[in-house]
Amino acid sequence: MPLPTALLDDLAAVFGDRLSTAQAVREHHGKDESHFPPCPPEAVVFALTTQEVSQAVKACARYATPVIAFGTGTSLEGHIAALKGGVCIDVSGMNAVLEVRPEDLDVTVQPGVTRKQVNEYLRDSGLFFPIDPGADASLGGMAATRASGTNAVRYGTMRDNVLSLEVVLPDGRVIRTARRARKSSAGYDLTRLFVGSEGTLGIITELTLRLHGIPEAVSAATCPFPSVEAAVQTVILTIQSGIPVARIEFMDEVMVDAVNRYSKTSHRVAPTLFFEFHGSQASVREQAERVEAIATEFGAQGFQWATGAEERTRLWAARHNAYYAGIALKPGCRAWTTDACVPISRLAECLLETKADLEKSSLTSAIVGHVGDGNFHVMLLVDPGRPEEIAEAEAVNHRIVRRALAMDGTCTGEHGVGHGKMEFLEEEFGEALDIMRRVKSAIDPQGIMNPGKIVG
Amino acid sequence: MPLPTALLDDLAAVFGDRLSTAQAVREHHGKDESHFPPCPPEAVVFALTTQEVSQAVKACARYATPVIAFGTGTSLEGHIAALKGGVCIDVSGMNAVLEVRPEDLDVTVQPGVTRKQVNEYLRDSGLFFPIDPGADASLGGMAATRASGTNAVRYGTMRDNVLSLEVVLPDGRVIRTARRARKSSAGYDLTRLFVGSEGTLGIITELTLRLHGIPEAVSAATCPFPSVEAAVQTVILTIQSGIPVARIEFMDEVMVDAVNRYSKTSHRVAPTLFFEFHGSQASVREQAERVEAIATEFGAQGFQWATGAEERTRLWAARHNAYYAGIALKPGCRAWTTDACVPISRLAECLLETKADLEKSSLTSAIVGHVGDGNFHVMLLVDPGRPEEIAEAEAVNHRIVRRALAMDGTCTGEHGVGHGKMEFLEEEFGEALDIMRRVKSAIDPQGIMNPGKIVG
Repeated sequence: MPLPTALLDDLAAVFGDRLSTAQAVREHHGKDESHFPPCPPEAVVFALTTQEVSQAVKACARYATPVIAFGTGTSLEGHIAALKGGVCIDVSGMNAVLEVRPEDLDVTVQPGVTRKQVNEYLRDSGLFFPIDPGADASLGGMAATRASGTNAVRYGTMRDNVLSLEVVLPDGRVIRTARRARKSSAGYDLTRLFVGSEGTLGIITELTLRLHGIPEAVSAATCPFPSVEAAVQTVILTIQSGIPVARIEFMDEVMVDAVNRYSKTSHRVAPTLFFEFHGSQASVREQAERVEAIATEFGAQGFQWATGAEERTRLWAARHNAYYAGIALKPGCRAWTTDACVPISRLAECLLETKADLEKSSLTSAIVGHVGDGNFHVMLLVDPGRPEEIAEAEAVNHRIVRRALAMDGTCTGEHGVGHGKMEFLEEEFGEALDIMRRVKSAIDPQGIMNPGKIVG
Repeated sequence: MPLPTALLDDLAAVFGDRLSTAQAVREHHGKDESHFPPCPPEAVVFALTTQEVSQAVKACARYATPVIAFGTGTSLEGHIAALKGGVCIDVSGMNAVLEVRPEDLDVTVQPGVTRKQVNEYLRDSGLFFPIDPGADASLGGMAATRASGTNAVRYGTMRDNVLSLEVVLPDGRVIRTARRARKSSAGYDLTRLFVGSEGTLGIITELTLRLHGIPEAVSAATCPFPSVEAAVQTVILTIQSGIPVARIEFMDEVMVDAVNRYSKTSHRVAPTLFFEFHGSQASVREQAERVEAIATEFGAQGFQWATGAEERTRLWAARHNAYYAGIALKPGCRAWTTDACVPISRLAECLLETKADLEKSSLTSAIVGHVGDGNFHVMLLVDPGRPEEIAEAEAVNHRIVRRALAMDGTCTGEHGVGHGKMEFLEEEFGEALDIMRRVKSAIDPQGIMNPGKIVG
């Protein structure tokens, strides 16, 4: 559906040559890293200020035209697909770190700043921002999808690490969701309402984030196990023992092999845990000893320590690139990535049933997991040109979601709903979904904000 | 405004003699621990099940009659005042611990279970629930007001420690806000929306809460300082150094004196910090040494260690009773308690300006604070029979709130809005308050849930 000319004129008046309707630009903005087919917007504007975002949203509101925010396009459930056309507001140019406040352990950034960029910026401050999805995503996008990553077991997710947001509402008004105090009991928690709302309630134009002190000591290790179950039992007992492990990540043998090929590492090909410990020298040593004792109980086949900073960086870079390593297993393929998260007591059962299910499938698949949180991803490699592979992946994904829901888990631990997981929300939430719909209608009565996502 | 007879008949049919319109019962349910005048409901029902709560709400909805939930009545901003009459649903009888899951570090409870009760229940499990407001409040009420307490600096607030809620909606439907997985990106964060909603969006009938392992080692200490500033600077540097202190609490000299009298302790009368350290033996020792070094830098006048469990319990019981100790300073008085919370970099400034302001006042006042979070309370003792004292307390409170807001802080760190803090929300949130109003109208279109609180 083409945009009204009057709207394009209004946008051109604000954005000049930062308004584009070029095919290539539109296609780039209609495609994330998922298996879903691209769905480009009718036009893209490149906003540089909150005021410009507000003006763009006001213009779209006048013509009841859909608005989709875009950061880095690294989402995994079709979040940025322009299902009903409309205008994409690209905020990647809003990429300034506005203020670091070391004394308050917080930072204010524009939404286009990426997670690596903010940590690069903070490098000499002794502070860091821990949330690390696989991609070098924008912080606005990470807040919008309630992202997490490998550090969540210790530092929480975006839910826990956003102090305050500036948001452009569906009518173009600009609000701030909270003050900068560490805690507050003042009214409804608007910050948490917008974190995870995936651009369906407003567009995030500024974020104040919690920072953490870079620990005095850090040590990392990998450890292969004789079985998936042995690895998972080690995780469960570690968490139950209250050991404040910073990272505890799982890869199955397929994924370890893929990572070895892609990142030129030489991990033994077996179900493997990746650990990281943060603290004082003494505490890191103590945590490592306790975890090693637990792992040994479950038949661990030897810890390999990455002691130097460079070695550690290489180890985690390989972990972060697992998605790309998986895709590289079958050139030309796309990945269908599942994202179940279950109570940790059910994790072994859920993973083992899933493994057994995958063995019956013809698809190449690999598993990685933020297992300290009960969250794991199956990467299902599909040839986008073969509908039967897509259908099989879809069926596997359905069974994984149903399995997780039956175990009191969730259909998405960290990727979000987009349009890919919408069909599961009814089962996950029941009547509570009606409350989400009411909130959506109350805040976005015209339904112009990223339509067709979360609540449809 | 008397209740419709038909409503009373409907309630009597469900509750029998657990429906009361007796004067004494109504008065008890119209009064919290604040300075506000009592405001009793027209009737009280004592619910024992979720279904009964649902039936009561449905009955009230039929007659557009206000509904107010009641736990222990220990709130501090008039939360339970029946400003527009209506029916109080007392859930204190729903006080069963339903299931403890040690392997998942969580527990499911009914809303009337109190914080002390759940910890008593957990005593032999090696687990505990850390959130501890002064009163032995109900967990449903604590979730409803987004409570915190002395452990929040390490363990977070109710915001961070509620995994999932069962809620009776304003039309009587029962929903569950989330699954039991540790994290989820599935849709809007309904759990966080109901935490802190003070009964204005629904009534909490079940809570699943995060638990924490009882640390291997615990040590506590008190330390007097030569000045308020020296104590606060010690707090700031401790937090900035990333020392994972479990508790770091402040009392001014007036409060220490009050506590000594009330709890028969013998702390030196000076601005004082109360510390607690949690961890392994080695880590607790290390934390304590580092904090002692920082305190010494600021002129600390000697740590006094409470090493035994009994001694520690006595120390924290005295701290928790600070409110009652304060009130006891002037028999017959009520306390007007302020609740500002500011970014920690502004805490010294905020406290010192407040101290100077208090010196000009004729009221007896004392200060306690969860200073690790930037949160402090001034207790202003007022004779309820002397309007000029009430007016003076109100003026002091206004100045404290304005001071906190000017420092990017909040009008309430942990007590909530009730009707006492409503007038400040416009200043704190600006246009964002409109989003709260829209959410309220969308979920409670008749406006029957605890009317006159938060958004009016």
